[in-house]
Amino acid sequence: MNNKGLLVVISGPSGVGKGTVLRSYLAQNKKVKVSISATTRNPRPGEEDGVHYYFMTEERFCQLAENDGMLEHAQYSGNYYGTPREMVERELCAGNDVILEIEVQGAMQVKQKCPDALMIFILPPSMAELTKRLIDRRTEDEETINRRMAAAKNELAQASSYDYAVINDNVDDAVEKIGAILRAAKCSTNYMKDFINEVQQL
Amino acid sequence: MNNKGLLVVISGPSGVGKGTVLRSYLAQNKKVKVSISATTRNPRPGEEDGVHYYFMTEERFCQLAENDGMLEHAQYSGNYYGTPREMVERELCAGNDVILEIEVQGAMQVKQKCPDALMIFILPPSMAELTKRLIDRRTEDEETINRRMAAAKNELAQASSYDYAVINDNVDDAVEKIGAILRAAKCSTNYMKDFINEVQQL
Repeated sequence: MNNKGLLVVISGPSGVGKGTVLRSYLAQNKKVKVSISATTRNPRPGEEDGVHYYFMTEERFCQLAENDGMLEHAQYSGNYYGTPREMVERELCAGNDVILEIEVQGAMQVKQKCPDALMIFILPPSMAELTKRLIDRRTEDEETINRRMAAAKNELAQASSYDYAVINDNVDDAVEKIGAILRAAKCSTNYMKDFINEVQQL
Repeated sequence: MNNKGLLVVISGPSGVGKGTVLRSYLAQNKKVKVSISATTRNPRPGEEDGVHYYFMTEERFCQLAENDGMLEHAQYSGNYYGTPREMVERELCAGNDVILEIEVQGAMQVKQKCPDALMIFILPPSMAELTKRLIDRRTEDEETINRRMAAAKNELAQASSYDYAVINDNVDDAVEKIGAILRAAKCSTNYMKDFINEVQQL
């Protein structure tokens, strides 16, 4: 029987509520792990190495990336960010599902390296609702909101490249759907191929 | 929003418990319909037209089949059996999911005509357990059981052609998995494509 965990990629535009959905999902599914990103930026007050990020030098980061030690990586505002392969593979081999919450470009890199990755895109119920959620945060000025909405449109244009799209209209519904997607994936004939072979042999 | 129902094909070897799983699933999901097969054989006592089968003449059956009015059909012991397209499409358009409980050859015909059909294969926990279940029925003699086991091996060899494989170790688990598979399918970006386009336009 195939006991390897599932690699799950979750993306969605800023303001769609990925964080809330994910926290609620994780509270109900203790065996699911979230990947910790690596970065070359300096830790902010309160951030711990190995908890919020793996903090590393640019030299170390680039060495890992060159040796295929990153499932995806990118540069933002002069710093590198990426997903170290090692922790992810260790958890998958231990039978734990691993969730990567990453943006669209990184997600496409992961899909290329790990074609079995389950790709889930979180959709807003509408663009109007997404704008409303960004405004309701009251943490961003108008310029930032407009920039985020433009970015959201670019990201939404990639939604069809994902396997699944979950509308976050209601957090509980979205969490329930993500659960169903993971349970279904574990019944896919691809995931079940070892068991199918086993039954056929006997 | 895409409100069309899902076409679901369920197959599995004789004795695996498809009937029990399906009845239990349907009891919990009232909007799911089961397709009624057409046949040219004579009704048995108690069988009603449009309930157990659509009974029809060979002429009518062949006319339908020639005009692409059957999603799949085959001949057994001199009689034709098939799935009339009309009822299935009417229910799908009304937003109801439709389950076809058919054998492997018919399932492959459906997959060819309806590539979006969700293909689920019900697996026994083991071949030993399948033999035990056939013996426990006490309705078949040894020769019939041996014939069914040989057929089961042929059918299991096709399991990998399905999208999903559900082990019927425990009826409630199997029913729960089928539910998850259908809910997940309704989140697939293919099923969601109209909504995704709609959100992108706004």
